[in-house]
Amino acid sequence: MSVEVVKKEEMHTLDRKHKLEDSQSELVDGHDSSSWQSNGKKKQVIVPICTPKIHYTPLKTGLCYDVRMRYHAKIFTSYFEYIDPHPEDPRRIYRIYKILAENGLIKDPTLIGADDIGDLMLKIPARAATDEEILQVHSKEHLDSIEKVSKMNREQLLKETESGDSVYFNNDSYFGAKLSCGGVIEACKAVVEGRVKNSIAVVRPPGHHAEPEAAGGFCLFSNVAVATQNILKNYPESVRRILILDWDIHHGNGTQKAFYEDDRVLYISIHRYEGGKYYPGTIHGRYDQVGESKGAGFNCNITWPVAEVGDSEYMLAFEEVVMPMAREFRPDFVIISSGFDAAEGDTIGRCHVSPSCYGHMTHMLKSLARGNMCVALEGGYSLDAIAKSALSVAKILIGEPPDELPDPKKTPKIEAVEMINKVIRIQSKHWNCFKYKNGNAGYKFNEEITESLISRTFPLQKAIREEQLRQLAKNYGFITLPLNEIEVPEDTILCSPDIFQEKTIIILVHDTPEIWAAGDTITGLIDPSTSIIVDSTLDFLKWAVDRKYGVIDVNVPQSLYEQDNYSAMITAQEILLNLWDNFIKFLPSIAKVAFIGVGDAYSGIVHLLGHRDTRTLVKSSVSFVGRKPLKPLVPLVDESLSDWYFKNSLVFTDKNHPCWVDNENKKPRKKFGRVLRCESDGLSSNMQERFEEGTDFILDSFEEWSDSD
Amino acid sequence: MSVEVVKKEEMHTLDRKHKLEDSQSELVDGHDSSSWQSNGKKKQVIVPICTPKIHYTPLKTGLCYDVRMRYHAKIFTSYFEYIDPHPEDPRRIYRIYKILAENGLIKDPTLIGADDIGDLMLKIPARAATDEEILQVHSKEHLDSIEKVSKMNREQLLKETESGDSVYFNNDSYFGAKLSCGGVIEACKAVVEGRVKNSIAVVRPPGHHAEPEAAGGFCLFSNVAVATQNILKNYPESVRRILILDWDIHHGNGTQKAFYEDDRVLYISIHRYEGGKYYPGTIHGRYDQVGESKGAGFNCNITWPVAEVGDSEYMLAFEEVVMPMAREFRPDFVIISSGFDAAEGDTIGRCHVSPSCYGHMTHMLKSLARGNMCVALEGGYSLDAIAKSALSVAKILIGEPPDELPDPKKTPKIEAVEMINKVIRIQSKHWNCFKYKNGNAGYKFNEEITESLISRTFPLQKAIREEQLRQLAKNYGFITLPLNEIEVPEDTILCSPDIFQEKTIIILVHDTPEIWAAGDTITGLIDPSTSIIVDSTLDFLKWAVDRKYGVIDVNVPQSLYEQDNYSAMITAQEILLNLWDNFIKFLPSIAKVAFIGVGDAYSGIVHLLGHRDTRTLVKSSVSFVGRKPLKPLVPLVDESLSDWYFKNSLVFTDKNHPCWVDNENKKPRKKFGRVLRCESDGLSSNMQERFEEGTDFILDSFEEWSDSD
Repeated sequence: MSVEVVKKEEMHTLDRKHKLEDSQSELVDGHDSSSWQSNGKKKQVIVPICTPKIHYTPLKTGLCYDVRMRYHAKIFTSYFEYIDPHPEDPRRIYRIYKILAENGLIKDPTLIGADDIGDLMLKIPARAATDEEILQVHSKEHLDSIEKVSKMNREQLLKETESGDSVYFNNDSYFGAKLSCGGVIEACKAVVEGRVKNSIAVVRPPGHHAEPEAAGGFCLFSNVAVATQNILKNYPESVRRILILDWDIHHGNGTQKAFYEDDRVLYISIHRYEGGKYYPGTIHGRYDQVGESKGAGFNCNITWPVAEVGDSEYMLAFEEVVMPMAREFRPDFVIISSGFDAAEGDTIGRCHVSPSCYGHMTHMLKSLARGNMCVALEGGYSLDAIAKSALSVAKILIGEPPDELPDPKKTPKIEAVEMINKVIRIQSKHWNCFKYKNGNAGYKFNEEITESLISRTFPLQKAIREEQLRQLAKNYGFITLPLNEIEVPEDTILCSPDIFQEKTIIILVHDTPEIWAAGDTITGLIDPSTSIIVDSTLDFLKWAVDRKYGVIDVNVPQSLYEQDNYSAMITAQEILLNLWDNFIKFLPSIAKVAFIGVGDAYSGIVHLLGHRDTRTLVKSSVSFVGRKPLKPLVPLVDESLSDWYFKNSLVFTDKNHPCWVDNENKKPRKKFGRVLRCESDGLSSNMQERFEEGTDFILDSFEEWSDSD
Repeated sequence: MSVEVVKKEEMHTLDRKHKLEDSQSELVDGHDSSSWQSNGKKKQVIVPICTPKIHYTPLKTGLCYDVRMRYHAKIFTSYFEYIDPHPEDPRRIYRIYKILAENGLIKDPTLIGADDIGDLMLKIPARAATDEEILQVHSKEHLDSIEKVSKMNREQLLKETESGDSVYFNNDSYFGAKLSCGGVIEACKAVVEGRVKNSIAVVRPPGHHAEPEAAGGFCLFSNVAVATQNILKNYPESVRRILILDWDIHHGNGTQKAFYEDDRVLYISIHRYEGGKYYPGTIHGRYDQVGESKGAGFNCNITWPVAEVGDSEYMLAFEEVVMPMAREFRPDFVIISSGFDAAEGDTIGRCHVSPSCYGHMTHMLKSLARGNMCVALEGGYSLDAIAKSALSVAKILIGEPPDELPDPKKTPKIEAVEMINKVIRIQSKHWNCFKYKNGNAGYKFNEEITESLISRTFPLQKAIREEQLRQLAKNYGFITLPLNEIEVPEDTILCSPDIFQEKTIIILVHDTPEIWAAGDTITGLIDPSTSIIVDSTLDFLKWAVDRKYGVIDVNVPQSLYEQDNYSAMITAQEILLNLWDNFIKFLPSIAKVAFIGVGDAYSGIVHLLGHRDTRTLVKSSVSFVGRKPLKPLVPLVDESLSDWYFKNSLVFTDKNHPCWVDNENKKPRKKFGRVLRCESDGLSSNMQERFEEGTDFILDSFEEWSDSD
C-alpha cells in the first residue's frame, strides 16, 4: 500500500484565513532578512516592565509547629514503658522540626519554635481550635469526653486510657488535641488566604481515626476533617471542593465518616487492609466503600491486601488512580493526611515507601488546585523515618524537584496490582477517567447481562468440555461415566474404555482448562479465533494412556450456569467421595491408584484422603494448585493419615502463591502435604516444569520406574 | 468470618529492639509532660544555622534567545507568500520572547534580547555551533551542503529550496542554523554546570527532522541530537543517560536516527502517524520501532492514529507510558524537543493540547533527573498558540504549579487508547514497569506459545461452533451442509432440515460469536466458568424459524489454526460464491432470499451481490458490521447493481465506527449501501438495538408484514 505524504508546509494552507489575520495584525521585522535590511523600517514594540504574573513561586511555605503539642504523652506505669515508649511519641514532631533546621529549611538554632524561621518557610502559629470549630465535625458528647481528661487525677487518666480504643490521656491531652486541630486549621487558612504558597502542619496528636462520636487509634479530634469543614464554610467562593489524600498506612475512618455523604470532599485513602485484619479493621476501610447518596463516588479506598508494599505500588496507585481521579474532581484545595507509617523502617506499617517516593507523590499532588496544598501530619512511628520523609515532602513544598526513586526497576506486587484494578473497576461507575483503564476488561460481563441477553448466551465451559470429550473419544476411545446423586453436567467424568479391567488407575481431577486469549483492551471482548484452550492435564493423561494405565478424568466446573450458591470446591469433594464409594472401590481388578489434582478441584482429593482410609489402593497424590488456596488434610478416620499424606503427596504451587509471600524461607505446615514452589509463573508453566518430577513420584509410589531410569 | 484486629499500639512491639535504640540515643524533653515539668532538666540541642541544603529553588531559569535567528527566512517570490507566509516564520521565536516579557518573566522593554532580563530568568547567549560539534551528528557532506547556501545568489537559493524536502534557504540560513544549534547546546550546558536550574532555548530553525545526512521538515541541523552528543561527551561523569521527550506533533526522525542504536539516550516521541500518511510518513515513526542492537528498547514512538487528540490522550500517554518508562531509565538529564504544533489552534497539527496540559507535562518531567531539564523549541505554527504554550512551560520551569486542565472530564479517543496499549505491549519486553499494565492482557498468548504447548492446545473457535451445532440440531433439527472445493471446517454451514422445500430463505453470514469474559488482569488468562458466549445471531435465527423460513447459517472462522495466510474476508467471499453457484441457485422451491451479515463475514455478501446478478431471488440484505471495515459493492455484472444495493440494503455500524470519526455529519458513500449509525456501543448491543428495524426491512422486501403491523 502506498500512502501519499503531504509536504509539511502544504498542510497549513488548509486554513489560510487564520494565517492572514495573524499576518496583517503584526508584520514585524526580521521576517525576511533581505527585505528587513533594505527597508530598514522597524515597528518599535515596547513591553513595559511589569510585576511577574506568577502567584506561587515568590511565596514561602507555611510551617506550623508548637512545642506545647509535646505535653500530651502517655503516663509511664512501668520501666518497660520508659525504655520502649508508646509509638505515638512526643518526639515525633520535634524530630521533624529538627531535621528541617539541620537542612537549613528553617532557622531556629535552639529549636524552641521561633517566630522568624528564615527565608524559605513562614511560621504559622498554632492555636487551640474553638469548640464551635470542633463541633462542625464532632458531637458535643465527644468534645466533653475529651475535655474532662484535663481535670482527672492519675488513676482516672489511666482508667480512661485503658478503656479507650488505642488512645491514651494525660492532663494536657485536651489542650494538645485542640492545638493540633487548630494548627491544621491555621495551616490551611494561610494557604487559602495567600499568605503562603503551601504549608505543612507538624502536629500531634494525629486526627484521622477520630470519628465524630469517638476517639481512637491515637487520635482525639479529627484535625483534617475539622479543617476541611472550616475552609468550606469560611471560603465558600474560593474553595468549593477539597481533596483529602490520606497516605497514612491506616485507614482514616474518622475522616471518611465525616464526608461519606458529601460531594464537596473527595477522600482517597491508601492503606493496608488485609481482609480487615489490619487496624482499624472495619469494613468501612474496604475498597468497595465508595461513598453514599450525594457522596457516592467521592470516597476511594486503595487497600493493600498485604504488607511490605513500597514505592512501585504507591507510584502505580498514584498514576493509575489518584491523579486521574483527582484531576477530574478539580479540587480547589488539597490536604494530605500525611502519616509516615508506610515509610521504610516503620515497624507498625511494615512497608517500604522511600523518602523520595513521598517527594514524588507530593510533587504530583502539587499539580492540582494550582498548588494550594496543606500537609498535615498523622501517624508514623519510626522517628528517623518520619523525619526523613517529612524533610523530603517539605523540600517539594518549597520548590525542589523530587530525588530519584532508589529502585525504579522494581515491579509492584501482584496483589497490589490486582487491588488497584479492582478499585478502578468499582470507581469507573463514577469517574470518566477510568473508562478505558486496566481492570475494565471484562466490565461488560459483570455489568450488562440483561434478561434479553440470556436467550442468546451459553456458557463457555460447556463448549470446552464437549470438545475435550470429542477429542478423547476420538483418540483414546474414552467414554462418559455417569454419576448418581450429584447434579453436575453429564460429561463431568470421562474414563478410558476398559476401566473395569484395569489394575492401575490414574485419576485426574481438574478445573476447566485455561484459555489464553487476547482480549480487546477497550471492550473486554475475546476474539475466539485467536484464542486457544490450554489443557495442561492432557500431557499427564497421554502419559498414563501410554503406560497402559486406566484413566478417570474428572472435570469440576468452577461455576454452574443455573446455580448461584455453587461452590467448585464443595462439588469436587462431593464428586470424589461419591466416585470412591460407589465406583472405584468396586472395580474388580483395581490394585493401585494415583491422583493428579489441578486447581481448585484438587481439594476434592485432599478431602477424600482425609475422610476415607484409601491407603490400600492409593499410592500417591500429585497436585498443581497454581495460586489457588492450599487445602489441609483433616484426618477424620485415623490420625496417622496426616503423616501418610505428607509422605505420599506432592503439592506444587506457583512461584507467586501467597503462601510464600513474606515467608520466603518458611515451609507451609505438614498438614498441607509436601508443598513445593515452582520457579515458573502460571499453572500451565508449573505443570510443564514439574511434569517429570510429578510422574516419577507416581512411578516410585507404584514401585515402577520411568523409561529413562 | 470474624477477624481479629490487633490494637494499634500492640503491633509495634514486634520490633522492640529498634525502638530501644531510638529511645536510648535521644531521650529529649517533652516526652511526658509530668516528668518533664518535674525534673526540669533539659538537654539543650543546638542546630547551627546553615545554608539551605536545596540545590534547585534558588537558581534562575535559563533562557536562550537571539534576534539573529530571525534572519533565516523564506524568500518571497509572490504576493501570496507575503500575505500567507511560510509557517516556519521568523516571528515564532519573537512572539514567545514577547509573551514572556508581557508576563513579567523577563525584563526587556524593547525586546531586543537584553543581557540582564531580571530576577527570574538568566540570559544564555547563543553562539554558532562549531563544525566539530555539528559533525558529532551530521556528515561532512551535509554540513557543507548547508554552508554553501550562505554564498548563493537568489536563483540558486530558490532552486535549492525547491529541491529540498520541506526546507527553504536564504543567505542567513547557515548562520541561523548554527546559532540555533549552538543555542540549544549552551542552554543544556548551563543546566548541567549548575548555572541555572533548568532552561528554555527559544530557537529556530528547528532540528528534529534533520537526519545525519539530510535536512528536512524545516530543519537544517539536528539541534537536540547535537546538544545531546555534546553533553554526553563533555560531562561523562555527571550525565550518563539523557531522556529526549519529543512532543512535537511530527515524528523526530532525525533525533531518532542519531540514537537508534544507543542505550545512553532514551528517545520518546508522541506524534501523529496515521498509517504513515502524516509527515514525515516513514515507517521509522511507527510504534514498533523500538531501537536496535544496544539501543533496543531505548526508542519509543507513541503514534496517534487520528488527528484531533488533546489533553486527555497526552495525559494518559504520560501517566501510562512516558513517566514509568522514564523513571525506570533514570536519566541524568532531560531534553524536551518542544514543538508546539499539537497545541489547540495549530492548523498543521490539528490537535487540541491546551497550554495548561503543556504545563502538566513539564511538571511531570521535572520530577526526573533532579529537575535537570532543557526545553528546546521545535515546530509549532500558530503564533498565538506557541506563545501561550511556551509561557505555560516557562512558568513551570520557574517554579509555578500548572493550571487546571480546561476539560479534565473528557475521555481519550478509543484509537489513542488502543495505540497506548500497543506501545505498552511492545515496550514491555524491555521495561519492567509495563509488566502488569493494560494491554498486557493476552501477553502470554502472543509471546509464549512453544512447541511443547501445541500438543495440549486446541482452538476455542472450534469448540464454540460445535456447541452451536449441538444446540441448533437439538432445538431445530439443523443439519450440516457440506461444501465442495473450499477447505473450511465441516460444520461451517448449517441449515434447517427442509431446506429443499423452502420458498423463503434467510442466509445468516457471521463471524464466530463474541465471548464476554473476565480476564485475569495479571496473567491475561480467561476463566471459562465465568465467561459466556454471546451469539447475537441467534435472535435473528429464531425469528426466521418462527416465521417458517428456511435458514442457512454460515459461520466464517476469523482464523484457521493451521493456515498462516488465511483471510476471513476472502474466505467469506469464496464460501458465498460457492454456496450460491453450487447450491442456492438450484434449490427447487426457492423464491425469496434475504441476507443477514454480521462482522467481517458480511463482506462475503457484498462480494456476491456485486459478482452475480442475484436480483431475481435476493430481496434484501441487512448487515451489522460493528467497528469492522465497510465494504463497497463493486458492480461487476451490471452498473445498476449499485443503485439496487443502496435501495435494498441496510448496513448498521457501531456508534464508534471509524467512518463517523471526524465526519459527524457526513454519510459514507452510496457504494457502501445504506449505512446507519447505531446509538449503542458493541456489536451485540447494535444487533439488539436494531433487531426490529432490520427484520421489518426484510419483511418489507418480501412484501410481508410483521405481526405487530
